[in-house]
Amino acid sequence: MTSKPECDAVIVPPVVSIIGKPDCGKTTLLEKLIPELANRGYRVGTMKHHVHEFEMDKPGKDTWKHKQAGAKVVCLSAPSGLGVIRDTEYDSPIEELVHRYFYDVDIVFTEGYKQEAMPKIEVYRRSIASEPLPQRDATWTAMVSDIKIAVDLPHFQPDKITDIADFIIKKFIKSEQKTNTTLLVDGKNVPLTPFVEKFIKKSVLGMTSSLKGCDKAKQITLTINND
Amino acid sequence: MTSKPECDAVIVPPVVSIIGKPDCGKTTLLEKLIPELANRGYRVGTMKHHVHEFEMDKPGKDTWKHKQAGAKVVCLSAPSGLGVIRDTEYDSPIEELVHRYFYDVDIVFTEGYKQEAMPKIEVYRRSIASEPLPQRDATWTAMVSDIKIAVDLPHFQPDKITDIADFIIKKFIKSEQKTNTTLLVDGKNVPLTPFVEKFIKKSVLGMTSSLKGCDKAKQITLTINND
Repeated sequence: MTSKPECDAVIVPPVVSIIGKPDCGKTTLLEKLIPELANRGYRVGTMKHHVHEFEMDKPGKDTWKHKQAGAKVVCLSAPSGLGVIRDTEYDSPIEELVHRYFYDVDIVFTEGYKQEAMPKIEVYRRSIASEPLPQRDATWTAMVSDIKIAVDLPHFQPDKITDIADFIIKKFIKSEQKTNTTLLVDGKNVPLTPFVEKFIKKSVLGMTSSLKGCDKAKQITLTINND
Repeated sequence: MTSKPECDAVIVPPVVSIIGKPDCGKTTLLEKLIPELANRGYRVGTMKHHVHEFEMDKPGKDTWKHKQAGAKVVCLSAPSGLGVIRDTEYDSPIEELVHRYFYDVDIVFTEGYKQEAMPKIEVYRRSIASEPLPQRDATWTAMVSDIKIAVDLPHFQPDKITDIADFIIKKFIKSEQKTNTTLLVDGKNVPLTPFVEKFIKKSVLGMTSSLKGCDKAKQITLTINND
């Protein structure tokens, strides 16, 4: 075990990283795990990190033409779904992405964020690599592999999807202490103690409750630019 | 002029809709206007409404596979850009889209939101349609067409891009009174009077200023779930 124990940042929803050497079956695992969780009523989000030039849209579409013309942000909105593509000047921190885009899911799985401090599930296949990833640390929570690895972690065969889903729900979704107030400062999440959370929540709800349309607010998002 | 004058909702940044009959040159205008504004230092966003089944990603990509497997939200993040695709249960209101995704642009152009109350620029080409759109109302701000239309609106030839850009900057970007605090309640923007805006801003900055990392905050985003 090496030292990288900074797992205490408050991130809502829980984020779990699926890691492993190339072609070991990360995407294949997610393709089975997502419907398993969705069928049990959980809303799943996924995040993929990409180190190369970014591209996502279909060439020739209007949004693609707008982007090619120099738009910084393009959005395609339809009744059943929406897509947003934007330029960034830096590699977005996971907590910013989770806060901005995953505010209504129960769990987020990432692929390709091996260096980050969130909990990890490693996928390993003997036929693909002679060894699993080196330097496991305290953020490793389980191993999914076709052979048993000599580590002190829960182990699952890749086809035991219901067991893997049970493990994930119990460990990450159910145990998640729901934080009702999140504070993002310049894109970074600021952890709140229960007292501070309650104080801010009650104060802002009090300040806004008499505004038109705010008396029965279920969710309030306040953005302040402090130039 | 018909009556649909609800142009007073506070939306930051300004949103201008490019409208017109099919094939009259809306996308072509945007493809010239976006680089013209970008070259003058403005950050431009675009939004396209789509009434049919939503699709944006490239089949076969990992994010596409995640989405096919049932993920509600997928995100592809790279150093130079990011893309987010999500399921929606309703046609997202423009103000929610602007607030969530266009927080850092100077102007947003939309295509396909003819019924909404935001300012509009109509594109018309004589060779494509015998008449421009019917039922112009107070939200029409200019006409871009190859022939002069008998309406009391500024008129521009489609190739006079610098003139059109001048008009847009003067009318929408420069005149935009920058609101520094936005309040979104259950996805809907709540207009704030200058007094209320100042009160909420100062209160929240006061509450959060002593928290770690918050003393020099440039932007604060606070989300409160009031279950």
